[in-house]
Amino acid sequence: MIMNKIRIGIAGYGNVGRGVDRAVAAASDMELAAVFTRRDPGALRIADSSAKVHKLSDAEKMTDEIDVLLLCGGSATDLAEQGPRYAALFNIVDSYDNHGKIPEYLAAVDAAAKNKTAVISSGWDPGLFSIMRLISESALPDGKGYTFWGRGLSQGHSDAIRRIEGVTNAVQYTIPIDDAVKAARSGENPNLTTRQKHLRQCYVVVSPGADKASIEKNIKTMPNYFADYDTTVTFIDDDEFNANHSKMPHGGVVIHSGRTGENKHMLEFSLRLDSNPEFTGNVMAAYARAAFRMAREGDFGAKTVFDVPLAYLAEKDRQTLIRELL
Amino acid sequence: MIMNKIRIGIAGYGNVGRGVDRAVAAASDMELAAVFTRRDPGALRIADSSAKVHKLSDAEKMTDEIDVLLLCGGSATDLAEQGPRYAALFNIVDSYDNHGKIPEYLAAVDAAAKNKTAVISSGWDPGLFSIMRLISESALPDGKGYTFWGRGLSQGHSDAIRRIEGVTNAVQYTIPIDDAVKAARSGENPNLTTRQKHLRQCYVVVSPGADKASIEKNIKTMPNYFADYDTTVTFIDDDEFNANHSKMPHGGVVIHSGRTGENKHMLEFSLRLDSNPEFTGNVMAAYARAAFRMAREGDFGAKTVFDVPLAYLAEKDRQTLIRELL
Repeated sequence: MIMNKIRIGIAGYGNVGRGVDRAVAAASDMELAAVFTRRDPGALRIADSSAKVHKLSDAEKMTDEIDVLLLCGGSATDLAEQGPRYAALFNIVDSYDNHGKIPEYLAAVDAAAKNKTAVISSGWDPGLFSIMRLISESALPDGKGYTFWGRGLSQGHSDAIRRIEGVTNAVQYTIPIDDAVKAARSGENPNLTTRQKHLRQCYVVVSPGADKASIEKNIKTMPNYFADYDTTVTFIDDDEFNANHSKMPHGGVVIHSGRTGENKHMLEFSLRLDSNPEFTGNVMAAYARAAFRMAREGDFGAKTVFDVPLAYLAEKDRQTLIRELL
Repeated sequence: MIMNKIRIGIAGYGNVGRGVDRAVAAASDMELAAVFTRRDPGALRIADSSAKVHKLSDAEKMTDEIDVLLLCGGSATDLAEQGPRYAALFNIVDSYDNHGKIPEYLAAVDAAAKNKTAVISSGWDPGLFSIMRLISESALPDGKGYTFWGRGLSQGHSDAIRRIEGVTNAVQYTIPIDDAVKAARSGENPNLTTRQKHLRQCYVVVSPGADKASIEKNIKTMPNYFADYDTTVTFIDDDEFNANHSKMPHGGVVIHSGRTGENKHMLEFSLRLDSNPEFTGNVMAAYARAAFRMAREGDFGAKTVFDVPLAYLAEKDRQTLIRELL
């Protein structure tokens, strides 16, 4: 039997888009059919395939050539608009990660996805970590869950530092605090404040003559981003920045502890990722496979990782999964 | 809106059956409608509810009174026969754990479950660990997975020791070997032998005058159970047995490491359980909720944890899950 490959489109070829490209190139049941960009298509180099690059505005003319369109833009700027627009035309997958606004976004995408399947908020958080939180709470309802992020580079926090006058480059690492992780694992179910759970390490390059003391104060007192955390600021030069801070590692851990009667139990799920966008691209590619299969069965509308039967994620068929992994 | 509670039946009131009883008592959307036993119903004390006890042979007359029947017997002796028989009459959930025979068992249950939903092999392995293996492989196909069990009490191995002449009581703990767990976490994807991965600790009570040397040799050379492992045997008396070895702890860890291009990634899921049967009972209760919901939607047949959308496991509704856990 010859199976047609799932034809993938990528909308937005940044770090996550490149991660999807790499994931699709490694999967034998998918092919990258097209990349869509708002930049100049001729200037874009595609890393892992020979897919053609098109202007994003041409996507709607290509609905017959794409089975699943993966939206790889940012949640704040791109997805709020692109999700509903493209869910009307394509099966889509995204990694919408603005937790507070997910219900609203889900409703907008669902209204548009009348004859298409749209998996929103895939990736690892939201995504795999959400799955762990749900499984943990369902298996151990008399318990309490904790999510720690890091050690990892936060793009949003790095951007916030870079917008400060005099800063030419910056990265911010989110670090879970050991004592808090230990407390979560203890089974005592403590209440932990924001400051107790994570600290923030910033590595900052500044222009010559910049006022470092003022920049450091500016960072540490920034509302929402840093004010509620213990934050360290280290000034470094471009060479050190390029040598030690050009990767995008991330990860974290979901801990859930609880009890049945007198007996205590603990579930823990952790990720250690050298490249956050490449792993996110991998997860999105797996959910693209699921979206394709659900659409083929007529299961349309906006879906989350809570709605997708897990067998749909795998390249192997169900019988093989049951034999090898169950 | 008044919701009717899901009416649960338990077939087999051993350790896991008692675990299910406790889980159902703690869930606000379920009630224990009946317990079925092959023992004398009048002699059975139900721990956490006032459910009536019936002879197992009466179950088939009570199909109108049970929404989901949880089969809590052993895989080898009970389930192979009970699964297909009761899947024709009830929605069922079991924790069938004979990994090698799952495909055959699944087919037999599926053939019977024409108008019923049957979730087989729930629990934690098979069950939650299977989910982790599938998610890990799907998210990181270029990788390798490892499952370690323990430190935990293995009922099957304990039983095997108890059948040796001169042994009056025994427990066997499966212990993952630290160096092997470290090797799995290293990202080097080593091949590990059975002996390298786990060791087996036995605590044995013997009758007066028993030949300890012979019993120890008997244990350590027992094919399938012990011969392929490094095994320790410690003889203890009844008092020490009752004081230190009457609980049923278990757990384990699923480790999957792999790469995207040059970047390495690792996923890890671990469980630490004070009571294996109580946690298993909790997981089975969550899948009973799922079986009930799938049956209501007409999604009949034999299902595994790979087929069940995760939202169906939770007592909370989908909107709440998305808001709180996604």
